[in-house]
Amino acid sequence: MCQLLGMNCNVPTDICFSFTGFCERGGRTGEHTDGWGIGFFEGKGCRIFLDTTASAESQIAAFVQSYPIKTLNAIAHIRKATIGSTALENTHPYTRELWGHNWLFAHNGNLKEFAPTFKGLYLPVGSTDSETAFCLIMENLRKKFRSTFPTTEELFNAIHSSTKKIAKHGIFNFLLGNENLLFAHCYNNLHYIIRQAPFAKAQLKDTDVTIDFSTVTTTKDRVALIATEPLTTNETWTKIPPGTLLLFQNGTLIKQSPTIQVPL
Amino acid sequence: MCQLLGMNCNVPTDICFSFTGFCERGGRTGEHTDGWGIGFFEGKGCRIFLDTTASAESQIAAFVQSYPIKTLNAIAHIRKATIGSTALENTHPYTRELWGHNWLFAHNGNLKEFAPTFKGLYLPVGSTDSETAFCLIMENLRKKFRSTFPTTEELFNAIHSSTKKIAKHGIFNFLLGNENLLFAHCYNNLHYIIRQAPFAKAQLKDTDVTIDFSTVTTTKDRVALIATEPLTTNETWTKIPPGTLLLFQNGTLIKQSPTIQVPL
Repeated sequence: MCQLLGMNCNVPTDICFSFTGFCERGGRTGEHTDGWGIGFFEGKGCRIFLDTTASAESQIAAFVQSYPIKTLNAIAHIRKATIGSTALENTHPYTRELWGHNWLFAHNGNLKEFAPTFKGLYLPVGSTDSETAFCLIMENLRKKFRSTFPTTEELFNAIHSSTKKIAKHGIFNFLLGNENLLFAHCYNNLHYIIRQAPFAKAQLKDTDVTIDFSTVTTTKDRVALIATEPLTTNETWTKIPPGTLLLFQNGTLIKQSPTIQVPL
Repeated sequence: MCQLLGMNCNVPTDICFSFTGFCERGGRTGEHTDGWGIGFFEGKGCRIFLDTTASAESQIAAFVQSYPIKTLNAIAHIRKATIGSTALENTHPYTRELWGHNWLFAHNGNLKEFAPTFKGLYLPVGSTDSETAFCLIMENLRKKFRSTFPTTEELFNAIHSSTKKIAKHGIFNFLLGNENLLFAHCYNNLHYIIRQAPFAKAQLKDTDVTIDFSTVTTTKDRVALIATEPLTTNETWTKIPPGTLLLFQNGTLIKQSPTIQVPL
């Protein structure tokens, strides 16, 4: 199984601390050694770093940990290959353009007997069930809303509709976002925390690193972190109810779907 | 004006030597200080590094110069902003998926009175004339060939047709490629060289670096380099005739259009 990490903020924030702990799961504290990736939005632009080596050993991952890129929204993934070989085209997060915006997608889980017929608007480049699911969500959005960016309510409902159908094929925890929206679907395992004032110290779970957030933040800052497993030992993470789609914006939870019974 | 660099090979090759010289033009030997980018194909996957700082000063550019990524096809660009602010979404190369393949595009020049109406299949994320031109080429290909990857001949002719129309709006030197094809259009300034056995020493023009290619190649290797200005002082670069579209594959020139008179 793979590991997901998302961050959504109200002011540009670097993800170095969380990403440092997260990377340990790619070969050191976890067995997810089949590549990793992280995508950062900066304005409408998007910067993606991908590698097919274990994140705990990757020179590119070491560089990203040391290079503070400030972002309102980021999605990261470390991979334990199940469907699709270890190859760059099978490395999450995947990206596509829709309505003149970049979108990123990363998935944790396995989809079975999942071979949708595509109209051709979005086609997978690689061979993963994950990229196939992303292309299907994007195609459904394009078919429903054509060339017009819908309201957040309409977008949420449309993504939830696709999610429910795809989740019938198996484990489908995912993160999906553009430059300010972060959708998080928990099929069976996904946690989140919202950090805001008063900020305190945090201790990473996967490596011996501590940060005092009160020294690097202002009282207005708000950061939502979403991860497969909690990243810190001394903070209270919320387990998202299985079968629920959440939407984060400006570092806060703005929408939550009804919980759907998923076959666990 | 911006600077273009492309590399197309018959065996995976790193671009460190050429990219090192190229980066000097972003702030040291050239005034192109408004960002840079490079995209590498690895299999069907694609890895893109982008930055809005001058390439000669960029920490990410320094990392890429030192980290040998082997590729069959790469496209790089350093930017002197003319249309569109200095922002990540305005940084080349741009990428889109078509027919289940990644495509990269980078442009040197300026297009005037160029505001095509899009069907919505591909929409610019940023505000450059360059990304607009790329989206138009992609949309034309999608409209013409629907979901089916055409023959190389058909693809070349279709890209040439779009190119001729867009070039009526101004200077349109560009590089466009997928994992094995590299299209290069010279509107007024683009050079290439094909390196093959017997390999010799090469001396960069922009910085004091020399390489002896005979020590890092086999006799079967073949590498085509395409650049706005020649990158080396002791090799013979060919100036592409203005108004000509070339196509490189496996490190060799496989197609060349008739030369169209462009308004210089």
